[in-house]
Amino acid sequence: MRITRLHHVAIAVSDMGPLDAILGDAFGLPAPHREHRAASSLDIAVYPIGESAVELLRPQGPGSSVPAFIAEKGEGLFHICLEVEDIDAAMAELRAKGLRFRTEAPMQGHAGTRVAFLDPATTGGVLFELLQQAHAG
Amino acid sequence: MRITRLHHVAIAVSDMGPLDAILGDAFGLPAPHREHRAASSLDIAVYPIGESAVELLRPQGPGSSVPAFIAEKGEGLFHICLEVEDIDAAMAELRAKGLRFRTEAPMQGHAGTRVAFLDPATTGGVLFELLQQAHAG
Repeated sequence: MRITRLHHVAIAVSDMGPLDAILGDAFGLPAPHREHRAASSLDIAVYPIGESAVELLRPQGPGSSVPAFIAEKGEGLFHICLEVEDIDAAMAELRAKGLRFRTEAPMQGHAGTRVAFLDPATTGGVLFELLQQAHAG
Repeated sequence: MRITRLHHVAIAVSDMGPLDAILGDAFGLPAPHREHRAASSLDIAVYPIGESAVELLRPQGPGSSVPAFIAEKGEGLFHICLEVEDIDAAMAELRAKGLRFRTEAPMQGHAGTRVAFLDPATTGGVLFELLQQAHAG
């Protein structure tokens, strides 16, 4: 497998306000892409920075692991998303090395991307997401 | 101020072993740069990924906020470091906007960089580091 990019870092928040004020008003980053993902009950704001991004995740209900994370650890840094060339090959290789994924197959991500989350119990407690671009592979 | 890059994401660990195994052996990232920073009693491993990096921080004693973070929240994602063109101008601008820094002036970082940590009480609970390259500004 080949990791090509740190695609984004996600921050779990209960309220978009404080981090929007930091990233947008204080740091002067351009206006983020915003969307609501119904399947995971998440409001999302993506602030691009160079070839990477900071993503805010605000749960509006169950459907993701974000509410449990906030309940246990509080708001804060939540996951790292790494871009790979071929997510199917990466999942097969990592499973052969003993790592586990939260889903059997990749899920549909934003704009035609395909994504999968590793089980943090097999990755030193850190939540990693893998992502393959729509045009890749 | 202008942020040009997500310079790195740092992970606080009690033992380098598990994350070294994930990033190096499982993900296949190239061998990291390793160093010991005596002033902060930290062992550091830096895994470059594209224009960014993942940095492991292992405390060997007091001298940084990493031990308190691990005691309170456990091992995991610790801070985001953003590269700026001019760290003195960025600090002045952010102070004028009401944000605070942990040190009065930038500190000397790796390889001639200058760095400063924002007080997370003023940044929505997330620890942000700013960094200016040696050749910039």
